[in-house]
Amino acid sequence: MSNGDIFVGELIGTAILILLGAGVVAGVLLTSSKARDAGWVVITFGWGFGVLAGAYTAAPLSGGHLNPAVTLGLAIEGTTDWGDVPVYVLGQLAGAFLGAVLCWLVYLGQFNANRDEANRIETLGVFATRPAIYHPVQNLITEIIATIALVLPLLAFGLTEGLGLSGTGILVVALLVVGIGMSLGGPTGYAINPARDLAPRAAHAVLPIPDKGTSEWKYAWIPVAGPLIGGALAAGIFEVAF
Amino acid sequence: MSNGDIFVGELIGTAILILLGAGVVAGVLLTSSKARDAGWVVITFGWGFGVLAGAYTAAPLSGGHLNPAVTLGLAIEGTTDWGDVPVYVLGQLAGAFLGAVLCWLVYLGQFNANRDEANRIETLGVFATRPAIYHPVQNLITEIIATIALVLPLLAFGLTEGLGLSGTGILVVALLVVGIGMSLGGPTGYAINPARDLAPRAAHAVLPIPDKGTSEWKYAWIPVAGPLIGGALAAGIFEVAF
Amino acid sequence: MSNGDIFVGELIGTAILILLGAGVVAGVLLTSSKARDAGWVVITFGWGFGVLAGAYTAAPLSGGHLNPAVTLGLAIEGTTDWGDVPVYVLGQLAGAFLGAVLCWLVYLGQFNANRDEANRIETLGVFATRPAIYHPVQNLITEIIATIALVLPLLAFGLTEGLGLSGTGILVVALLVVGIGMSLGGPTGYAINPARDLAPRAAHAVLPIPDKGTSEWKYAWIPVAGPLIGGALAAGIFEVAF
Amino acid sequence: MSNGDIFVGELIGTAILILLGAGVVAGVLLTSSKARDAGWVVITFGWGFGVLAGAYTAAPLSGGHLNPAVTLGLAIEGTTDWGDVPVYVLGQLAGAFLGAVLCWLVYLGQFNANRDEANRIETLGVFATRPAIYHPVQNLITEIIATIALVLPLLAFGLTEGLGLSGTGILVVALLVVGIGMSLGGPTGYAINPARDLAPRAAHAVLPIPDKGTSEWKYAWIPVAGPLIGGALAAGIFEVAF
Repeated sequence: MSNGDIFVGELIGTAILILLGAGVVAGVLLTSSKARDAGWVVITFGWGFGVLAGAYTAAPLSGGHLNPAVTLGLAIEGTTDWGDVPVYVLGQLAGAFLGAVLCWLVYLGQFNANRDEANRIETLGVFATRPAIYHPVQNLITEIIATIALVLPLLAFGLTEGLGLSGTGILVVALLVVGIGMSLGGPTGYAINPARDLAPRAAHAVLPIPDKGTSEWKYAWIPVAGPLIGGALAAGIFEVAF
Repeated sequence: MSNGDIFVGELIGTAILILLGAGVVAGVLLTSSKARDAGWVVITFGWGFGVLAGAYTAAPLSGGHLNPAVTLGLAIEGTTDWGDVPVYVLGQLAGAFLGAVLCWLVYLGQFNANRDEANRIETLGVFATRPAIYHPVQNLITEIIATIALVLPLLAFGLTEGLGLSGTGILVVALLVVGIGMSLGGPTGYAINPARDLAPRAAHAVLPIPDKGTSEWKYAWIPVAGPLIGGALAAGIFEVAF
Repeated sequence: MSNGDIFVGELIGTAILILLGAGVVAGVLLTSSKARDAGWVVITFGWGFGVLAGAYTAAPLSGGHLNPAVTLGLAIEGTTDWGDVPVYVLGQLAGAFLGAVLCWLVYLGQFNANRDEANRIETLGVFATRPAIYHPVQNLITEIIATIALVLPLLAFGLTEGLGLSGTGILVVALLVVGIGMSLGGPTGYAINPARDLAPRAAHAVLPIPDKGTSEWKYAWIPVAGPLIGGALAAGIFEVAF
Repeated sequence: MSNGDIFVGELIGTAILILLGAGVVAGVLLTSSKARDAGWVVITFGWGFGVLAGAYTAAPLSGGHLNPAVTLGLAIEGTTDWGDVPVYVLGQLAGAFLGAVLCWLVYLGQFNANRDEANRIETLGVFATRPAIYHPVQNLITEIIATIALVLPLLAFGLTEGLGLSGTGILVVALLVVGIGMSLGGPTGYAINPARDLAPRAAHAVLPIPDKGTSEWKYAWIPVAGPLIGGALAAGIFEVAF
């Protein structure tokens, strides 16, 4: 895979992931949306099908990582070249930013209608994760364990015939992401992906959304550090156990 | 594929798609339905499984496009012959009309019971999409982006082994449609398919439904133009990036 | 396939289907159940996964029809021998009765706790379908169209490679049944299977359930006749169109 | 497969299963969780996707049983060596305990916030099953039948090409577990796995959770005995019928 293919694949794939992922949160949280109050089941399936769409689209170009924690895990494990890692991550960050902008365009009317103060914080929730109880150490532990639950199975899938990072494997990963959201998303909103949180948070900071409130940069390091630590630990466990 | 096979395949497949798709909206919205108030999760899965049923049924005859935006994208990309496009679209429009009539027959008792004025507009919602906030430019942008999120992955699936427009690929496309509905359906109700909106709207106009109210033809061009522009843009992006 | 294999396969498979299908209705409707009020999304997925479990189990022995309307469609189409049809149907009826008894055993405590008069009719709803609006002609039409939407795709799946009545095909059929329930179940509760309604209704009539109320035999012919007519029509359409 | 591989595979796989399974209950039941009150649909899909994640991860090492009732069924049927059974069960029990501890770490803030008396019993519900109506004989029957509905299809899947205990087969088993939860989980909360109940109950007993209340050891034998009897009966039925 050329650097260009990797960058373009991750850019497009992560853009689709965040368009659908941020989109489902916008649909469920914002006023004047037909999906308003559709609940956690829709949020978690929506993010999972975002992985489905983005990863299958990126797969022929870049393998469809869409997540620096996955790229890190695959680099430690040896599937991905360390020299390719920066290109993967740049594509992921650029794609996540682009996806957030597209989501804002899709829900432009809803963002503009969402003016009362009580809803401001929901506007941030479309773009970035926020913990239910703010407690940095606990939040970090949650993100680490949730990311291990993503990356360790993903590495093991490669050992089952027909379940590599294409074909049926991506469908299984997408359902795994639904499951992680349902089961481990309660405390922090499951970033499990540094690009998924950091770049849309930056989009929130720069987009001209009325009454948007703070971008909560104080919390931003946790959904970056937690998933990276989790991805590395998963690769370590995989190396020892398999 | 002969013209006859294409027409019959698209006719039957799109009829099943709209029977199940309009059906799930009828089931959730109309009074005296056992699915009443089952929510957005049921509406979005219902439409996705409508794609599953219709596309697998049509696949052996026509490949199962069921959507002029998909046919347009495949024609630009080169998989579908430009000369076959009119037959595809005619089959899709005729099938969507037929599916709407079948849905009306299935829910005949519910349509007849749904007499109070407050529910009239829900009757239209079974057949055609309606924006949450009426704003033509925003609504058009939403439909364009949502259709790109359908057609671009669909074109890319063709590059992954075993995921063409048959076999497991249709299952993945069906789940993708669930995801687009969950994530991007909030503002406009996600037509993402000109035939899905136009022909059932015509059925609404002519069927003898009591107290049915307006068919809102003023809005009808958006769910036609938006998906066609989105399908063409998706094919363009695909040609450049892949 | 021997007569013995067909009978045993359909017996076990249909018993599992009805155990899970009647079970999900019991779980959602009866008092003192942890699944109480879980809604239409759970009922429809529960029935679909009942098909998944029953059909995969029966597949190696009998092909996993589990439904006289499917057997009739496959006999007309030519896949199933007319001489085998009685064995299939006997196995399906016996299995459906057995499944209903097993469901009653699983929910014994709940059936016994479900004593107040307002809940009596819910007890019947566990076993047999009941229309939202009683109107024989409309109910019959609903069951006919819903069964066509089951059997026509099912026959067409056989033409797509790898999607016969085993392997991935059963998964797709199971999701199709989820979709039919979501979309077309609103008016009559979607029998779409004569065995699914008739034999559990008989079980309701003979089981010692306290305060169980009527078995509504007056309605029982519709979920038998409708699906059989629908299955035959689907086979006819298939013969003409494919 | 070496004893070490079996133990490590079952340990990791069952830990992931319980992390996600106990996690989804924690997310839905505990206060200050974003998944709070997400309902039975999320609990049942969450457990099913826990099976998906755990079994695919364990499959290359141990085949991914994750359940002493499954191991017992496969030993009776002959696929698994009786000599390997103790290693399987030890790995499953150790993994289930580990998974419960990980779930507690993920939801540490929520467990600590969940202090009022009315919620104490919900804390136990995260780790162990509790019947809706306490009645040992009925509860035992429910667990026996529900486990037959798990193990009998699972054994039959081995006869369908491409559906063994790896590849697509695990996806189908995961959806089967979703279905059993939806349909048969109402009376007892569906242990259907001795390790899933016993080891997390022990974790509940020893973990320093504030105000955690009783571990209800009086009930603990039922979710052990019921599934083992059910697994053995399923293998017996399989031997006779297939």
